[in-house]
Amino acid sequence: METLHQFKFELLYKSQENNSRLGKVHTPHGIIETPVFMPVGTQATVKTMTSKELLDLKVSIILGNTYHLYLEPGLEVISSARGLHSFMNWHGPILTDSGGFQVFSLQALRDITDEGIVFRSHINGSPHFFTPQKVIEIQMTLNSDIIMPLDECIPWPCEYKDADKALIRTTKWAKISKETLPVDSHQTLFGIVQGGMYPDLRKRSAIELQEIDFKGYSIGGLSVGEPKDIMLHILEETTPVLPEDKPRYLMGVGTPEDFFYCVERGVDMFDCVFPTRIARNGSAFTSNGKINIKNERFSKDQNPLDFDCKCYTCQHHTKSYIRHLFKADEILGPRLMTYHNLYFVLNLMEKIRNSIREGNFNSFKKSFLEKYLS
Amino acid sequence: METLHQFKFELLYKSQENNSRLGKVHTPHGIIETPVFMPVGTQATVKTMTSKELLDLKVSIILGNTYHLYLEPGLEVISSARGLHSFMNWHGPILTDSGGFQVFSLQALRDITDEGIVFRSHINGSPHFFTPQKVIEIQMTLNSDIIMPLDECIPWPCEYKDADKALIRTTKWAKISKETLPVDSHQTLFGIVQGGMYPDLRKRSAIELQEIDFKGYSIGGLSVGEPKDIMLHILEETTPVLPEDKPRYLMGVGTPEDFFYCVERGVDMFDCVFPTRIARNGSAFTSNGKINIKNERFSKDQNPLDFDCKCYTCQHHTKSYIRHLFKADEILGPRLMTYHNLYFVLNLMEKIRNSIREGNFNSFKKSFLEKYLS
Repeated sequence: METLHQFKFELLYKSQENNSRLGKVHTPHGIIETPVFMPVGTQATVKTMTSKELLDLKVSIILGNTYHLYLEPGLEVISSARGLHSFMNWHGPILTDSGGFQVFSLQALRDITDEGIVFRSHINGSPHFFTPQKVIEIQMTLNSDIIMPLDECIPWPCEYKDADKALIRTTKWAKISKETLPVDSHQTLFGIVQGGMYPDLRKRSAIELQEIDFKGYSIGGLSVGEPKDIMLHILEETTPVLPEDKPRYLMGVGTPEDFFYCVERGVDMFDCVFPTRIARNGSAFTSNGKINIKNERFSKDQNPLDFDCKCYTCQHHTKSYIRHLFKADEILGPRLMTYHNLYFVLNLMEKIRNSIREGNFNSFKKSFLEKYLS
Repeated sequence: METLHQFKFELLYKSQENNSRLGKVHTPHGIIETPVFMPVGTQATVKTMTSKELLDLKVSIILGNTYHLYLEPGLEVISSARGLHSFMNWHGPILTDSGGFQVFSLQALRDITDEGIVFRSHINGSPHFFTPQKVIEIQMTLNSDIIMPLDECIPWPCEYKDADKALIRTTKWAKISKETLPVDSHQTLFGIVQGGMYPDLRKRSAIELQEIDFKGYSIGGLSVGEPKDIMLHILEETTPVLPEDKPRYLMGVGTPEDFFYCVERGVDMFDCVFPTRIARNGSAFTSNGKINIKNERFSKDQNPLDFDCKCYTCQHHTKSYIRHLFKADEILGPRLMTYHNLYFVLNLMEKIRNSIREGNFNSFKKSFLEKYLS
């Protein structure tokens, strides 16, 4: 049905100001301009949104969670629809994670060995076993465009020797993962850099993965509770060790301010539940910072969430109305807020790309953050 | 801002086959073709839907619930938006009920006298007093196009003497209501026919209300638990006593089959939470009857809810996917189902209007119900 294009990364432009760059990721389901934010569609839906709305928002790629999809609806169901794209009627690019992070973070973990991870479903407690091979096979069934190898995710803080041990295993699994995916596959496997908060481990990881040779590199294990300055320090120790001609994906980040801090350190791809999750809890991004719409002071506020915003929500609805929807527990509330927050971060990322192109990233960053963090 | 058109009912066509008719209701916010189904927007939102989606569905009028809006967000908030239309960004016609039905059905009732009804909020238990005057004043603040007088709603079954007593009060309140609304108001007050399941009381109510003289007549107190044949019997005893040149609104009805049974008995306007409520619970209308999408047999069903349906949901999504959304408790599930069910009933009502126009209501009714009720 769809014409399959081969995966390719074009590095279009390198900033003079910092390590930021412009690129294009070609995938079988479309082209992604980087730096890019990928909305998270955990359970085959970006929560509250239709796929048409994602197109309206000019979303160029979404993320799906392997762990969740494997448990529900399960592979038989997704396979009967011939993959995740047609199952959820999203025909743009999809990146899936390996499920490793969820197994660790949802406290589902039971046992980990060199062979893989035994865990229990957070839904019904049923036991499951993820091996590096199985995780690739699951993602082959999902038929996502960009896939991830199983990795061992460590908590923060973590002792050096434990981080080292997890890294050895992660590299080993990365190798097995690459061997599992057929060489002629139209799916593209990234390697995931781990190594905790230890710069030397991060560098070793980056180098070992390049020896295996991947078409893109993810940076995992950041934004797991560590202070922001540590995260940024580790990031700036990591990206220079990664090849310039491959996309770099910082997993699970982030916030509007993070986009600036990480783009200028050479990151191309981002995903995070933050914009959509806080939307459902009543928090909206605005050019003057975050607001919580449930606040009493908005009860008669006839202004939009953000005067500067051109999204459907801001063009059609007042803070007073949206606050009412949240107070009355109406689904339209989370819908309108999700739409707004996604518009905000996608629009911000577009402006960031423009600022790189025009050579004024630093001044845009300064003017945005001055208002946003005030 | 908006040009205000005066209320007017045009009776366009009377069927030769039965008591069905075609008409146009003119209101300050637009024209409604009848017979019409009015989606219910209880809390200033048709649950899960944007006002843009209502326009896409060609909804010509919605209903708002005075009781709910009075309690939340309250009149101060709606007044600060200068009425319900701009508060919820729906600029088509709105009909509001009197709140009477909710006071009775939500078990909020504490005391009823000739002066009005004392009740407690179902949200926080706070005490309130609805008089016929106050209910008109509330609806003047809401600024809805068509408004209802406070009425006494009786349960089913109900003794004759109690039905009679409630009717006397309802007529008295109808008179007060008419006197309360300024004569030059752009809002239009209907009278509500009551009388329980007693044909003579229904007739008396209809005649007494006409003596007061309203621009439209609602039929209340039906579909309150009585068997369908009793409801239809009372209905066909009532509509002939109502003036032909005024719209007739059957409150709280109904189902697809009800539309046929009641249109052929001379009803012009309907409202009901049924299509949207069952949608949120996983039930979809189809041309072959209702289905519950949560059923296991749909887990791998790659077909739309209804092959004959041209709605967004059916054009883009499979039963397998929608079932997954419900199982995974995703908001998109109720959204897609609500859209479908509203499309179904609005489309059905359009086909009913066409069949009246073309003189083949009976044959359309037969072919639809044969499939739908099979």
